[in-house]
Amino acid sequence: MRKTILIVSDGLGDRPIEEFKGLTPLEKAKTPNMDHLAKNGITGLCHTINRGIRPGSDTSHLSLLGYDPEEFYHGRGPFEAAGIEMELKHGDVAFRGNLGTVDKNLKILDRRAGRIPDTTGFIKELNGMEIDKVKFFLKPGTAHRVGIVMRGKGISHKVSTNDPHVEGEQVMKIKPLDKSKEAKFTASVLEKFTAKVHDALKKNPLNDERKKKGLPEGNYLLVRGAGYVAKTPTFFERYNLKAACIAGAGLYKGIAKMVGMQILNVKGATGLPTTDVEAKIRNAVNALDKYDFVFVHIKATDNLAEDGDFQGKKEFIEKMDKAFSKLKFVDALTVITADHSTACSEKKHTADPVPILIHGKGVRVDSVESFGERACSRGSLGHFRGLELMPEIINILGMSELYGA
Amino acid sequence: MRKTILIVSDGLGDRPIEEFKGLTPLEKAKTPNMDHLAKNGITGLCHTINRGIRPGSDTSHLSLLGYDPEEFYHGRGPFEAAGIEMELKHGDVAFRGNLGTVDKNLKILDRRAGRIPDTTGFIKELNGMEIDKVKFFLKPGTAHRVGIVMRGKGISHKVSTNDPHVEGEQVMKIKPLDKSKEAKFTASVLEKFTAKVHDALKKNPLNDERKKKGLPEGNYLLVRGAGYVAKTPTFFERYNLKAACIAGAGLYKGIAKMVGMQILNVKGATGLPTTDVEAKIRNAVNALDKYDFVFVHIKATDNLAEDGDFQGKKEFIEKMDKAFSKLKFVDALTVITADHSTACSEKKHTADPVPILIHGKGVRVDSVESFGERACSRGSLGHFRGLELMPEIINILGMSELYGA
Repeated sequence: MRKTILIVSDGLGDRPIEEFKGLTPLEKAKTPNMDHLAKNGITGLCHTINRGIRPGSDTSHLSLLGYDPEEFYHGRGPFEAAGIEMELKHGDVAFRGNLGTVDKNLKILDRRAGRIPDTTGFIKELNGMEIDKVKFFLKPGTAHRVGIVMRGKGISHKVSTNDPHVEGEQVMKIKPLDKSKEAKFTASVLEKFTAKVHDALKKNPLNDERKKKGLPEGNYLLVRGAGYVAKTPTFFERYNLKAACIAGAGLYKGIAKMVGMQILNVKGATGLPTTDVEAKIRNAVNALDKYDFVFVHIKATDNLAEDGDFQGKKEFIEKMDKAFSKLKFVDALTVITADHSTACSEKKHTADPVPILIHGKGVRVDSVESFGERACSRGSLGHFRGLELMPEIINILGMSELYGA
Repeated sequence: MRKTILIVSDGLGDRPIEEFKGLTPLEKAKTPNMDHLAKNGITGLCHTINRGIRPGSDTSHLSLLGYDPEEFYHGRGPFEAAGIEMELKHGDVAFRGNLGTVDKNLKILDRRAGRIPDTTGFIKELNGMEIDKVKFFLKPGTAHRVGIVMRGKGISHKVSTNDPHVEGEQVMKIKPLDKSKEAKFTASVLEKFTAKVHDALKKNPLNDERKKKGLPEGNYLLVRGAGYVAKTPTFFERYNLKAACIAGAGLYKGIAKMVGMQILNVKGATGLPTTDVEAKIRNAVNALDKYDFVFVHIKATDNLAEDGDFQGKKEFIEKMDKAFSKLKFVDALTVITADHSTACSEKKHTADPVPILIHGKGVRVDSVESFGERACSRGSLGHFRGLELMPEIINILGMSELYGA
């Protein structure tokens, strides 16, 4: 059995930077290791969703892993919940939550309750609450964040948020987003739920302590990103590959968990520019003993670009490249790409295609000699869609089923 | 808000010409301005409908503007009618008409009534006619041409023409093209309509005058190109861009009007090789003060190729290029392409992809240094479909919606 490492550098693709004389951060960065892999591999450009479609990180990862977001993506909530290892069942509706601060008139004073460091003591007693035969599960995320899962009959993810996203505004009423009775029911249950939660939080003694310290109370649960848990075949069921994931940020662990990958926690993997890329790659290579497919996610390229920090992005790419040194010698198919471009000039995701290289036995090594947006546009893979990546990998591995005879 | 100029040179793409030592007219022509834009822009090849599909000018323009012809194209008639500024409503059925000459036995003597210069006096009294509760609106087009719009309940565009397209043959009976009762009804109403029109035209005193002068009478209305008016969102509704169109020929104005663009009439814009391209470009650039998106159509490249006049096509391309001089300095995204190829060797549209360049802030300038069919095949845009152009433009402008989160 051949092995595969898939490395996704979030938001790696970019646009020309004037200060780099029209080069992108990836083109400007010194990347001898990625260049080596590109030179000895096959390259191309990937439209992770489709041409001209500006991908979110969730939909684009599903697509790269071969799960059509049209079928498997029904809102962000479930992926965030999965990322903090909440149990999810087909039919559940999940949300991203924030513990926030409101005044007596439900005006939002702080969307994050002063970036409260831990919500455990606030939500413990709320976990398992049942309203109109719908069960609510809550679990603390990082800092002020809370994962929320609804389980019950006749519920829908077609409901609005109660979070106006602006402080000083009123908490919004949760409304059904379509005319189904399920959406109407879900909105009404959620309204009851948030009111009950508000009552309970107001009485929580932890808030008395916070008040004494002059800190904003954690007295309201803001919910958003309603998502429906689709029936999702595991990666193993789809590809017959035992898969694992190494990621710092929750969302990517969540996506991996949702498709049944084993999450491997690596010390120093933070999802931040200071993350230990070297440790992630070392662990990924070691994991090949036990797994057929290791998906490594690296977040910082995206965050730096969203800050417009092209110099930081370039430097982080160079740091990443150093960590990729050992990939030159690993006996595995090595795929390096991005989930989308993030343009430093726009400070946001763009629909510009991302460069991709595939290195390993069997690929038709092309004449491209470096890893970059424009170099890869001349690669033998040409332009292709994110959903086509896994079939391509499975083909190179020699594991594709025959169509016809 | 960033601005965009989209220039469509009709039938610009071509095949190798022996007399040009295997170069195409575009490759043979001296085009320093387009080459400059290509060199400092991103290039590619566009299949305006799809690979191997030979595009009409109507369907390909819809596609380039982001309107899937499968959804929005139901026959040519409405676009021609819109091009002469007839009012159209969703559900109408429209036709292209010719005022022709028939003998007593309805044998066609002249399909264009001697290219009669103006039909106004012939059709004025017919406009507004009602048959079986279906209203008919008529408006003079250029010379012998007449726009015809049917409005009423239960009508269909699935009806045949009465025009055999060959002189000396009999006018054909209009027949339903499917088994629906709407098609049957429409064919029967049209038969009554053309008979009534024939009766009225025979009695029109203008025909007595023509007879005296020995000119063929305008005594029959030939109808073709039956088309259904689909519910079409405006360009502004789709893209949030205020759009205008500069074109000489009616069809292109019609398409632009159908998607709610403002038609800007430019003196000297004729749709012929003698057209004032410079005036069109100057007006387009000026229009950017008021509009976000200006679509400029240039017809002559197609006509010359349909005549097999490769030398004329090459020379017209050079004339066009001179007019493009000021585009090098305009602060807008500039897109130059074609709606389809027209091969001088074939004297007709072909499905060969068309070259495209996109010049302006944010594009990943590629290594292509000239504008031509083969040069652009090495461009970073690769091969893409016409329907993908608008999403690509919207992406470059930074206006794409996020898919996912």
